[in-house]
Amino acid sequence: MKPPLRTRHDRLWETLETMARIGATPDGGVCRLALSEEDRQARQLLETWARQSHYTIRVDAMGNQFIRRPGSIENLPPVLTGSHLDSQPTGGRYDGVYGVLAGLEVLRTLDDHGIRTEHPIEIVNWTNEEGARFAPAMLASGVFSGTFDLDFGLSRTDTNGISVAQALHSIGYAGSSPAEAFPIHAAFELHIEQGPILEAGHQDIGIVTGAQGQRWFEIELIGRSAHAGTTPMHLRRDAVTGFAQMAHAIHGIGLDAGEHGRATIGMVQVSPNSRNVVPGKVFFSVEFRHPDEQMLQQQEQALAELLPAIAQPLGLDYTLRRVFDYPPVVFDTQCIANIRQAAQHLGLHAADMISGAGHDACHLGRIAPTAMIFIPCVEGISHNPSEKIHPHWAAAGADVLLHAILSASTTHKGILS
Amino acid sequence: MKPPLRTRHDRLWETLETMARIGATPDGGVCRLALSEEDRQARQLLETWARQSHYTIRVDAMGNQFIRRPGSIENLPPVLTGSHLDSQPTGGRYDGVYGVLAGLEVLRTLDDHGIRTEHPIEIVNWTNEEGARFAPAMLASGVFSGTFDLDFGLSRTDTNGISVAQALHSIGYAGSSPAEAFPIHAAFELHIEQGPILEAGHQDIGIVTGAQGQRWFEIELIGRSAHAGTTPMHLRRDAVTGFAQMAHAIHGIGLDAGEHGRATIGMVQVSPNSRNVVPGKVFFSVEFRHPDEQMLQQQEQALAELLPAIAQPLGLDYTLRRVFDYPPVVFDTQCIANIRQAAQHLGLHAADMISGAGHDACHLGRIAPTAMIFIPCVEGISHNPSEKIHPHWAAAGADVLLHAILSASTTHKGILS
Repeated sequence: MKPPLRTRHDRLWETLETMARIGATPDGGVCRLALSEEDRQARQLLETWARQSHYTIRVDAMGNQFIRRPGSIENLPPVLTGSHLDSQPTGGRYDGVYGVLAGLEVLRTLDDHGIRTEHPIEIVNWTNEEGARFAPAMLASGVFSGTFDLDFGLSRTDTNGISVAQALHSIGYAGSSPAEAFPIHAAFELHIEQGPILEAGHQDIGIVTGAQGQRWFEIELIGRSAHAGTTPMHLRRDAVTGFAQMAHAIHGIGLDAGEHGRATIGMVQVSPNSRNVVPGKVFFSVEFRHPDEQMLQQQEQALAELLPAIAQPLGLDYTLRRVFDYPPVVFDTQCIANIRQAAQHLGLHAADMISGAGHDACHLGRIAPTAMIFIPCVEGISHNPSEKIHPHWAAAGADVLLHAILSASTTHKGILS
Repeated sequence: MKPPLRTRHDRLWETLETMARIGATPDGGVCRLALSEEDRQARQLLETWARQSHYTIRVDAMGNQFIRRPGSIENLPPVLTGSHLDSQPTGGRYDGVYGVLAGLEVLRTLDDHGIRTEHPIEIVNWTNEEGARFAPAMLASGVFSGTFDLDFGLSRTDTNGISVAQALHSIGYAGSSPAEAFPIHAAFELHIEQGPILEAGHQDIGIVTGAQGQRWFEIELIGRSAHAGTTPMHLRRDAVTGFAQMAHAIHGIGLDAGEHGRATIGMVQVSPNSRNVVPGKVFFSVEFRHPDEQMLQQQEQALAELLPAIAQPLGLDYTLRRVFDYPPVVFDTQCIANIRQAAQHLGLHAADMISGAGHDACHLGRIAPTAMIFIPCVEGISHNPSEKIHPHWAAAGADVLLHAILSASTTHKGILS
C-alpha cells in the first residue's frame, strides 16, 4: 500500500520560523498587533510566498486576505482554510499563524505532486482576530459572516483613537473586494488548542465538533467599609466575606457542569483595598462556558439564586448584569467527517473535542460548512511568549488539513493527479 | 446634693466648630495633614486660646505641643490629657481634635470655678498621629515614649520627599524641648470610638481598658494563569478558588475569637485580573486583632495550618509572611478607676471596652499610667468627612474627662476650691 501523501514538514517549519521573525520579541514570542507595521510585513511576506507559487491574491474591505489556488472546475465555490497572522502584545509564534502557513504548505504540497482539485482552494488571513488592538476579537470574520456590519467593523478604534478604517489605509490593506460572504464549499481552520486537553490525553489531533457558548456577567457586591480594628465581626457588612462564599459556589457550578463546563472568576476588584479597612465593595466577573445552551441557562439560573442566598444573611446588596451572550456553535457534520477520515487515514490519535476559545471559524460556521482541527500545544500555554508546539505536532496537523481539504475539494470525480 | 461639676458644653462645641474651619472641605470634613499650613494654623489657634487663659506653652523637638495649667504643688508631675489636631486627607471634624479641645475645656472649667489642682495639668497635641502624610502613624508619641528614636522620627518623609525635620522647620514647630518622656502622674486620652459598639449598645461612655494587639500578614497564592475557555476545571490551578476557601476559613477564625476577635482581609490583588483568564495569582492581606496575646498566637497558628490544607489539594503554592506585630496594650488600673468613678458620679451609661484602633495613648501607656475614654460616633463612621458626634455625647465625654482629671490630680489634699 502506498504511504499516504504528506506535506513537507521541514518547509512548513521553515515558514513558521521565518514568519516568527516579524515582530519577534526578545523572549521568543511575537508582538504583531492587527494592522500594525509588523502586521503589514507579515501580510507582505505571505503575498510574496503566494506570488512565488502563482496563486492569486484578493483583499476585502476589512483587510481580509484571500490567496487562491485554482480548481479544475473553476466555477465551483472554494474550499477555504486559514486563520490569522495578528498576535497578542505578548503573543506566541503559533496562535493563528500556524493555521495560515499550514494552509500555504497544503497548496505547495498539491503543487509538488501536480494535484489539481475540482474546487479552488483559498487561504484566508482574517484581520484582527485577537482583539488586542481593536475590540471585539474576531472582528473581520464577524463582518464577513454578517454578525457585524461593515460600518461597525471599520469604526472600531484602538486606545490611540485610530479607527480600523484609518489603520487599513495606513498599511495599504483597505481592499477592493466587498467584506461579505461568498459561496464557500467547505471551510477548515487549523489551530493550536491553546489548552491542555490533547497533550494530557496523548492525542495528536483534536476533531473540533463545535465551540462553547459563553455567558459573561458582572457582579457588584456592596457592603460597608469599616475600620478593621473598631468594627466587631457581627456588625460588619464585609463584601470580601460574601465574595468568598459566592466564588466557592460559582466554582461548584462549573464542577457540576461536566467535562465541558467552565466557570471562571477572572477579575476581582476590592474597594477600598486597604489592609486595615473592612472592604465595602467587591466587583467581579463571572463567565460560564458550555457547548449546550440549556446548560448555560441552568448555570445562569443557579447564579441568580445563589447571590441573594449568600448576600442577604451577610447584610450585603448586589447587582448582577449579563454583559455578553455568545451561543454555542455546532460545526458541520461533513467537514467533521472529512477531518476524522483524514486522521484515520494517517494513523493518528485523534479525539473529538469542543473549542473552549472563540475562533474565526465560529463566525464562519454560521454561513458555511465549517469545522476545526486542533493540534496540542505544550502545557496548554498560549497568548504567551513561551507558547510552544513540537514539530511532529505541526506536521500531523498539516497532514490532516491536507487530506481533509483533498476529500472536500474533490467531490465530483476524485483526485486528479 | 449639689449637682456634679460640668464643663461648658456650648463653649466646647464652639471651639470644635471654630477649629473645624481650618482645613474645612466642602463635604463638611477637614483635610489637615500633619505639619501642613493647615496644621500650623490649628496649632496657632490652640496657642491663642491657651494664651488667653494664661497657660504656658512648650513645644518639643518632634513638634509635640504641651499646654500647661499650673498645679498648687508645682514640682509634682503633671496629669496629661490630649490627642492630635492632624487629620486624614478626607478626615472628619472630631477624630483627635475632640480630645485636645475637651482638654482645653476642662482647664477653662477649672478656671471658671477657681479650682486649683495639686498636680499641674497639661494638654498635649501629638504630631502626626494619623500617619497619612508621614508613615508610621502615632509617630511623635512613639518618639516621646521611646518606641522610635528621634532620628527615625525626624527622617520620615512624605510622598514629595519632605522630611519631618524639614516640615517642622517650615511651619515653625521644631521646638526646643527634648522629644522624650518626662515624669507623668496620669494620662487620659479622650477620643471618639471610631466604631459602632457604644452607639449600638446605647452607651454614653467607653471605659477603655486596653488596646488590641495586631498581627498583619501577607499571603501570595500561586497557581497558573490559563485560558478560561480551553482549560477544563480539573486541569486548573485557580488561585481565586483557593483564595475563596481561605477567606472563608479566615473569617471563621475571626468569628471563633469571641467578642474582641477581628479577622480582616482588606487588600486583594488578582493577577492577571482579566475576565477570560483563570487567575494564576492572588495576593492578599490578613490582619488579626485581639487584646489577648495568646489568642493572637492561636490565630496565627490556625492561619499557618489552614493555608497548606487548602492550597495543596488545589495544586497551589503559597507564601505567608508576617509583616507587623503589635502587642496588646493594658491600661493602668488606677486611671481606669478614675474614669469609671467619674462616669458613675455623672450618672452616665458606661461600658468597659477595648480599643480596636491604635492611639497615641497606646505608646504613652508603656511609660506612664494611662487610660482612654471613648464617646460614640454616629454609625461608627470615621476617617470620613461624614464623621459625626451628637453634642450631648461630646458633653458627656468632656465631663467624664473633667472628673477623671480632678480625681487624678488631687491625690494629696482633695480639691482646693
